[in-house]
Amino acid sequence: MELLKHKIMQEGIVLDGGVLKVDTFLNHQVDAELMLAIGKAFAELFRESGVTKIMTIESSGIAPAVLTALQLGVPMVFGRKRKSLTLRDDLYTEKVYSFTKQEESEVTISRKFLAPKDRVLIIDDFLAHGEAALGMARIVRQAGAEVAGIGIVIEKSFQTGRGKLLEQGFRVESLARIASLEGGKVEFV
Amino acid sequence: MELLKHKIMQEGIVLDGGVLKVDTFLNHQVDAELMLAIGKAFAELFRESGVTKIMTIESSGIAPAVLTALQLGVPMVFGRKRKSLTLRDDLYTEKVYSFTKQEESEVTISRKFLAPKDRVLIIDDFLAHGEAALGMARIVRQAGAEVAGIGIVIEKSFQTGRGKLLEQGFRVESLARIASLEGGKVEFV
Repeated sequence: MELLKHKIMQEGIVLDGGVLKVDTFLNHQVDAELMLAIGKAFAELFRESGVTKIMTIESSGIAPAVLTALQLGVPMVFGRKRKSLTLRDDLYTEKVYSFTKQEESEVTISRKFLAPKDRVLIIDDFLAHGEAALGMARIVRQAGAEVAGIGIVIEKSFQTGRGKLLEQGFRVESLARIASLEGGKVEFV
Repeated sequence: MELLKHKIMQEGIVLDGGVLKVDTFLNHQVDAELMLAIGKAFAELFRESGVTKIMTIESSGIAPAVLTALQLGVPMVFGRKRKSLTLRDDLYTEKVYSFTKQEESEVTISRKFLAPKDRVLIIDDFLAHGEAALGMARIVRQAGAEVAGIGIVIEKSFQTGRGKLLEQGFRVESLARIASLEGGKVEFV
């Protein structure tokens, strides 16, 4: 997606340890026009996939996910992240490890928002090690529903996430794929 | 806003202690079409207010805020909520007490996203005691910027928030105003 790549080149800041900071338009300040374009791009890619629901995790996934939901005419549900949680019957829960924050959190989704008939499009802002997307996919499977696909705004293709998701048979569509951040320079696949 | 009130009557669940659960369309599962309508309604109300930026707090404010930002053609910035935080020079920080969760958290916004010239429209999903909106307003003032207005999706008019905000001279526009939840019944103002 050229508009997104352009934005990354213009405003992305490469930090130590393979971190790409995009807080001017994606995960702190949010460019609403760009989110609309992202929503349209995902809708285009998954239009024929029979998607019945969009799933993401709070907070940075919400903006791209809600605009994808709008384009596809389906509801969106976002998982809550908690440090730890009393087990509750009405929730699906999966542990997700964040390499960025170096902490494990639990992602929860209310059971009433996923049914076996659902075909779920998982949307997230970043794909690195794939932990968040895999956690969401496990929740979809807990519900007996199906993963229709995984839509990622920015993929760090030099990390292991994409491979893990493909291994499990998921269709992964990333709007920007970064081959390298070495030397502080963004290179796309 | 009739569509919103209708949705509240159809799907809202009144819990003990004056809690209205709207997790089917606003703060867990999200109705994207409704968010678009909400964005249009806020844009209509604040079109002449010279808004340069939308501000909200993660997570439930993000969906209505990004669609308002889209309609007004301005960026949105969402505050991060943390239990506690090392003070950092590059962040505006304000303590916000949540009566629902009975805990204090810190809301942070990166300094680079607020400038003295900004006229900020604060958007939030709920107004009850007004703590979140007041915290955001304090951050706007810390930045030397101006609050252009406060847009609330659902206001609990039987609690103290609206009064506190009006006292400080803010323009408050709520799309649904709830007079009472007594006896498990939603009554609008």
